[in-house]
Amino acid sequence: MLGAIPDPMVDELLETLAVGPYLRLERIVSWGQVTDPGAWYDQAWSEWVLLLQGRAALNVEGSGLRHLNSGDWILLPAHCRHRVESTSSDPPAVWLAVHFPGI
Amino acid sequence: MLGAIPDPMVDELLETLAVGPYLRLERIVSWGQVTDPGAWYDQAWSEWVLLLQGRAALNVEGSGLRHLNSGDWILLPAHCRHRVESTSSDPPAVWLAVHFPGI
Repeated sequence: MLGAIPDPMVDELLETLAVGPYLRLERIVSWGQVTDPGAWYDQAWSEWVLLLQGRAALNVEGSGLRHLNSGDWILLPAHCRHRVESTSSDPPAVWLAVHFPGI
Repeated sequence: MLGAIPDPMVDELLETLAVGPYLRLERIVSWGQVTDPGAWYDQAWSEWVLLLQGRAALNVEGSGLRHLNSGDWILLPAHCRHRVESTSSDPPAVWLAVHFPGI
């Protein structure tokens, strides 16, 4: 999906697909990688993220654990703290992330 | 993908998934619909479009016919005139369209 998926890597693979003053589009491939223990993302821009393949779980501050299957998406408003608790490795988890200024 | 796909409809089905001052995200389902003969899209915002399922062909002014399969995407800058020449009906063509101010 969105191009060839390489063999598993130590770190997740992040590729920028499009970028502009009001947009950054990324494909992210994970093979079981998760956010470092105790770390949280706290982003100045909002993020809409779609799981294109595989399974994953996100922990979203204030709303708890959210399990995602292929085709599920979630909107993370700016400064909504979140972390990735799990990603599948077989098949790898493939994300489309759309970053944009605030909602 | 991105939720249930209904039975074929006369017109393509457009659903807004997220909207903000600098973003509009849509899922579009087509069952063979194309742009009206002689009509072209000419949009003030840029559009990044991903074909999530099915097959389609876009005609992009200046670069000609572009055949898309599931997983293919294309960036259409603001005012890049384009039209949909074909979409598959079995399976239906499912698009993710990301609209945003200029690139």
